[in-house]
Amino acid sequence: MNKSKLSLALWLSAVLVTSAEAKATPFAIAIHGGAGTINKNEFPPEKQQAYKDTLQAAVNAGYQVLAQGGSSQQAVIDAVMVLENSPFFNAGVGAVYTHDEEHELDASIMLGHNRQAGAITGVKRIKNPILLANEVMQNSVHVMLSGQGAENFAIQQGYQLVDNSVFDTEHRYQALQRAKQKMLAKDQKQYQAKHLNLDSNYKMGTVGAVALDKHGNLAAATSTGGMTNKRFNRIGDAPIIGAGTFAENDSCAVSATGHGEYFIRYNVAADICARVKYQGLTIDNAANQVIHDVLLPVGGTGGVIVVDSQGNIAMPFNTAGMYRASKSSTGETQIKIFKDE
Amino acid sequence: MNKSKLSLALWLSAVLVTSAEAKATPFAIAIHGGAGTINKNEFPPEKQQAYKDTLQAAVNAGYQVLAQGGSSQQAVIDAVMVLENSPFFNAGVGAVYTHDEEHELDASIMLGHNRQAGAITGVKRIKNPILLANEVMQNSVHVMLSGQGAENFAIQQGYQLVDNSVFDTEHRYQALQRAKQKMLAKDQKQYQAKHLNLDSNYKMGTVGAVALDKHGNLAAATSTGGMTNKRFNRIGDAPIIGAGTFAENDSCAVSATGHGEYFIRYNVAADICARVKYQGLTIDNAANQVIHDVLLPVGGTGGVIVVDSQGNIAMPFNTAGMYRASKSSTGETQIKIFKDE
Repeated sequence: MNKSKLSLALWLSAVLVTSAEAKATPFAIAIHGGAGTINKNEFPPEKQQAYKDTLQAAVNAGYQVLAQGGSSQQAVIDAVMVLENSPFFNAGVGAVYTHDEEHELDASIMLGHNRQAGAITGVKRIKNPILLANEVMQNSVHVMLSGQGAENFAIQQGYQLVDNSVFDTEHRYQALQRAKQKMLAKDQKQYQAKHLNLDSNYKMGTVGAVALDKHGNLAAATSTGGMTNKRFNRIGDAPIIGAGTFAENDSCAVSATGHGEYFIRYNVAADICARVKYQGLTIDNAANQVIHDVLLPVGGTGGVIVVDSQGNIAMPFNTAGMYRASKSSTGETQIKIFKDE
Repeated sequence: MNKSKLSLALWLSAVLVTSAEAKATPFAIAIHGGAGTINKNEFPPEKQQAYKDTLQAAVNAGYQVLAQGGSSQQAVIDAVMVLENSPFFNAGVGAVYTHDEEHELDASIMLGHNRQAGAITGVKRIKNPILLANEVMQNSVHVMLSGQGAENFAIQQGYQLVDNSVFDTEHRYQALQRAKQKMLAKDQKQYQAKHLNLDSNYKMGTVGAVALDKHGNLAAATSTGGMTNKRFNRIGDAPIIGAGTFAENDSCAVSATGHGEYFIRYNVAADICARVKYQGLTIDNAANQVIHDVLLPVGGTGGVIVVDSQGNIAMPFNTAGMYRASKSSTGETQIKIFKDE
């Protein structure tokens, strides 16, 4: 074979391998920006579009990593960071306020191929909590760090701390004042009753991403400011592995958003994966069962995003809306807020 | 029917109902006081007996509640409190020391019939952490509270705080000094490597209880001081619903003890229940699979106690020993430290 024929043959085999690989190695990403009672009539089209633009930017950030052969780990981190940096969503900038008018941030990440996981809860001065969750996973001997200790670990690892006020937004501050007004109660029993009736929007809002990369590895990441007006250093589902975040290559990757207490008690993320793994359900069936048949009857409002090792995506929710987007190597892109749009 | 015949008939039916109920309503409790590399040769028989006496006192405390028709919730709380109050076990008095020479305590409880759950992490001044976990479940709007916030909730609920030094014991203080000596490292990578090789006894030790009551309800509870020399407000598996504690009436109740990071990543307690629920496995098979086939190959040392709705008990572990005891209405009582004794 002469040199030009050899070049042609090499080129051809490269093309064939590449196209075969493209067929054999699907990749996909899905993201969410929280679920809740989003009222379409009070949500001007231009504002809806602004939210959708941010969702698109986030899903694109992750997709780009995957398309270039990067890891699902990096893809979910990059996607979540776009959402943390946006004031629209309850994570990073735009996080809700605690009862003490501060922001306490939670985040977690899990990798499907080795089930490594990292989580932080109650940090106040970490600009992108998902990065610190990843740092805990990669460079500590622990899975979960909290509060001041998590920030001390960040300092040791060379992080620059930011002032808690960088997460401030006027609309979240107003939401806290409304929540406090609604929650005026003379005792704990009355407080519990009022909390039960509090609009679900005060109790939820989280961002997250799940991805499958070309190497067949799944990852999930979740980040949140938690519940408006939360007290007593409450920990929700977002930093709980198995509740708000879960990934294992032989079933699926899940990130949840909703009324966290229910998602912890019903072990939501891991239960969806268990139904896939042990019952052979599709992620669509498994996720819909948990969201609609398990959670809804007991009052557990929210939704999940799920991806499996074939690149299938499911994004069910039992609220009026869920900010969400997905993009996969099969070409399908979705960016939606309500059921159908 | 005259009066004496009526009395006889009523007495007979009461006896018949009672004996039928006794047959139809089994009840059972199992407890653990931690798993680890317990060295039989360095463990004098009289000391072994002292440990076994405390295990017996704990299992009896819970069993008595069940025998009198009390709830599995009360049974696991009473059993765990005996272990928290004993200096032998790593929970309450006798809890290990953190890197900063304090005690940070975690606990959780879950009920199988309504999947209510409560958990606290990083509390320093609560004498019986399991009581506060139960308080969170019953009288807060949250599932999980942490650190200072959890203590503020306790104060609001009328708890008397204790000084952190009430948990001090000389043998745990010496263990901290040994751990610090072994963990001297010049950087984080070396620290991680040394931590990997650190004897498992420094990483585990927890107490817990699981119970089935006469009403057919399951409950699980876990309490711990966590890992010796822990830093950065580390959270282990004990307060994580799904990892260290899980209960649902249609599968089982589980309390775990071991190297917590693995138990979080592998969602141990909930995974055992999922195998029972979705694969139809016995608790013995499900628990053994997770402890021996899933955890051991990846280096996840520890054990679990499990009870199901028929009163069956499983207590597998993959370490040299696990302090454990069980007692059921069928009459069987076990109090063991090593595999067979």
